[in-house]
Parts: sequence; C-alpha cells; structure tokens
Amino acid sequence: MTLYMIGLGLNDQKDITLKGLEAVKKSKKVFLESYTSRLNCSVQELEKLYEQKIILADRELVESKADKILDSALKEDVSFLVIGDVFSATTHTDLYIRALEKGIKLEVINNASILNAIGIVGLELYKFGKTTSIVFPLDNWKPETHYNVLKENQAMDLHTLALLDIKVKEPSPEDIKKGNNNPLPERYMTVNEGIRSLLDIEEKRREGIFTLDTFCIGCARIGSKDFKIIAGTAKELLEKDFGEPLHCLIIPSKNLHDIEREMIEKWK
Amino acid sequence: MTLYMIGLGLNDQKDITLKGLEAVKKSKKVFLESYTSRLNCSVQELEKLYEQKIILADRELVESKADKILDSALKEDVSFLVIGDVFSATTHTDLYIRALEKGIKLEVINNASILNAIGIVGLELYKFGKTTSIVFPLDNWKPETHYNVLKENQAMDLHTLALLDIKVKEPSPEDIKKGNNNPLPERYMTVNEGIRSLLDIEEKRREGIFTLDTFCIGCARIGSKDFKIIAGTAKELLEKDFGEPLHCLIIPSKNLHDIEREMIEKWK
Repeated sequence: MTLYMIGLGLNDQKDITLKGLEAVKKSKKVFLESYTSRLNCSVQELEKLYEQKIILADRELVESKADKILDSALKEDVSFLVIGDVFSATTHTDLYIRALEKGIKLEVINNASILNAIGIVGLELYKFGKTTSIVFPLDNWKPETHYNVLKENQAMDLHTLALLDIKVKEPSPEDIKKGNNNPLPERYMTVNEGIRSLLDIEEKRREGIFTLDTFCIGCARIGSKDFKIIAGTAKELLEKDFGEPLHCLIIPSKNLHDIEREMIEKWK
Repeated sequence: MTLYMIGLGLNDQKDITLKGLEAVKKSKKVFLESYTSRLNCSVQELEKLYEQKIILADRELVESKADKILDSALKEDVSFLVIGDVFSATTHTDLYIRALEKGIKLEVINNASILNAIGIVGLELYKFGKTTSIVFPLDNWKPETHYNVLKENQAMDLHTLALLDIKVKEPSPEDIKKGNNNPLPERYMTVNEGIRSLLDIEEKRREGIFTLDTFCIGCARIGSKDFKIIAGTAKELLEKDFGEPLHCLIIPSKNLHDIEREMIEKWK
C-alpha cells in the first residue's frame, strides 16, 4: 500500500493539485499535519471537497506516535497532508525515513511553499540566503538566532526571509513541566512583533544590523488573493496593521537589481 | 479582466492545482512560458486536460513582445502558465510589473518549485544558502559564479543547490551575431557535466572547494514519481547515469544534523 505525502499549498482547499486530490480520494485514511502551519479555510471545507474524513495529526501523533500512521499505511493507502510543501519540517523527513524502513511504498506530491511564493515581492529567489525563524521569547529563553542569520546574510549581500512563530495547541511551559496538557489559545507572530524582536536585540548588541531605519518588507497571507505586502523602514512598518495570519518578514540585501527595485516600489 | 499567472509544478499535466485549472478553463487565451524549464508531458497532454489551445511563449514573446500578452489581458481573461512556480525567473516579475502598470487585474496561483521540492533529499531547506546555476560554457565565456557561490556557502556551513543549464530553441552564438534564428537542438545539462564544470574550475584555482572527494547529491526529475537521487563523492557520481532531464546538483554543508545524515544514507 502507499503512503502519499501531499502538499496542500498555502491558502485553501482548492490549492491541492489534481494529482494530490486523486490520491486523497483513493486513500482509506487521511491525516492532516495541523501544528506547523495554517490554512485560510476550515477542516470541514477540506473534508467537503475531498469527500473524506480528516484525522488531525498534532505534534504528539506525528512525532511520538507516528507508528499509528505507518501501521495504517502497511495495510491500506494513506494520505498525509502537509500545509505548504511536504518537506517543510524535519518531522516530515523523519516520517519519510520511518516509512522507507518499514518497506512502505511512498509517493510525494509537491505544492507551493512560502519559500517560493514570496517571489511575488519581486526579490530574486536565488539571492536569498539562509532562512530564519523568529520565535516567541520566553522569560528564560530569548534566542538571537534570527539576528545572527540576518548579520551573516547581510555580510554576503543576500536577502533574508524570517518566518514568524506559530503556537497551535501548545500548553504553557509551566503546564509542560507539570505534565498537564492544557493548550493555550492559538498565537501567530505579527510582522510588528517580528520587527520588535530584532530591534530589542539591536538595542542590546548595537551592531547596526537592524535599526528603525532598516528597509524591510512585511508580508501577510502570501499565496492567497487577500495577500498584503508593505515595503518601508522598520519604523514605518511598526505602525501598519497586516491583518490575519500568517505573516512573514523580509529584509532585502542592500544592493538590488533594477527590476527588484522597480517591483518593491510598488509595495511602498 | 484578469491576468492569471499560474505555476504548473514540476512534472506533468496533473500537477496543476484545482484553482489553477479553474482559471485556465475560464481564460480566453492561455500562454505557456516554454524556455526556462521543462515538463515531463507534452503540450498536447496539457491541452487535452485543460480543454484549451495553448500558445507557446518563447523568450522573444515574453521579453520583447510582452504587450501581446498584456493587451489580451486588457480585454479578456488570460492565463500565463509557468513551469514550477510563478516567480522563478526575473522575466516573470517583469511581466507582473508591466501588467500592474497597465492596470490589469492580477492573480498569482502558486505551485511547487525545485527550491522546495528538493526537500525530498532530506536536507533542511532553511539551511540552504544562495542558489546557483551552472551554465554551458562558451569558447570565450567560462563563468565561475557557481564555484564562488559554493565557496561562500561552504564558509557559512550552508547547503548549495546548483540548477543546471537548459538550452531550448536557442540559436548558436554565431547565428545570434548574424541575426539568424536557427534554433539548436535542445540541451539539458547532466549532473555529470555539472560536476565536471566544478572540477575544471578547481583544477585551475586549486582552492580545495570541489574535488573528486567532495560529497554531493545528484538529482533527476525531482517532483515526479520517476525521480532519481544518488549521494556519493563527485568521483562516484561521475560514473552514474541519471537518465532523462531535468537534473540538479546539491553540495551539502560539512556539518549535518542526525536526521539529515540518516536520510542521505538512503540515497547512497
């Protein structure tokens, strides 16, 4: 039997490919990885179009109890749906390896990911350096990775894409310590919060990597018709409302090609 | 009226999304950008599924005569199809800008690109540095950009994706000089040729960036069921036959995560 790993793209139920839909329709079980990203439609809308019941796969199911998915795939066709593209998270690679090791037939059906969809801002995709994430800080954990990645990319004159944190169905650190599973409300980091995080680190380190004058591009709901892109200084973008999630933040390199500059002008 | 810019994904007619197909079906004209990439199906297969006549858009039409496409889109719904994702080439960004300037309504419908589909090799996508291309050298033009990019990425401990050259419907440099338009046969660079190009530069520069012992991953037909991935030293891969195009070459960073190493083992 086959385990279909299928990207759903970035927006809604109609972003699945024809090939993906065929695989979903012939599957006996359909799992949706539901904790690393977010669609702009409901699970019910997916179920209606797919004519299938969807099993939500949270972190625990995918990371600790993946055998539930794999054991099904030994007996019957199973679809594992991923928002964006299939290999967007290490845990999906892990699932692929486990399936290979169990001798399960695998088929990957790709789709758009934020890594290519941000091409719409007009920056050349091949001039992006390492991608980074900005996470919600905790009282005792304030990572500066994104500042360091930006610094490295700037040194090489490359664009930086910063993905912004998502907290879905996660308990508080206190509850995790106590072993309680009381999920907190969903949280999605905004462009504004991402910018503030970089400014906070700048204030501490003062290396001139990201200041109120740094030119950046705030993006929301890329891949949907309702996307929003605004280019401007960090100070200007701090005052903008980007609306519903997901957001991401781009810091372009200093030297832009003419066509890059021309396109970015459109988002000011 | 609307100009739909639609990614077709990487393999065949069934990789279009439901949203993409809806837009194609309601368009009065359908253009396919036909010179920067390649599908593993014929134009006739696209036409049959789409129930539309497809106009092949070569470099001249897209770059010099884009007004033909734009003027249509002022009067009627037009689809502009791109293999992979929409903003894979500067020229597509240019078309988007010209359409905006003419007041044409635009809708972008994303799809998979090689930039995310290579996630299947098991390397983390966010650890890739700048993407590079390896081009067919000419007698008087032997660029070393890909060697330089690899060197920079190595210095930052990042993976490198090298896309391999495609020559479709291009006349020879001599014919271009003479103004003749006699297209040469199609050529697609192989993994073997890409490796040889890097070795040739290494032989000249001797900086130890890419030798016969360099570990790399050769890929062919990523995004199709018939993909081929082989990991090994440059020397080992030189002897492998990767079959039909498109090929690409990945040079992983020296330091791999456990899960990256575990997955790459599967391709040896």
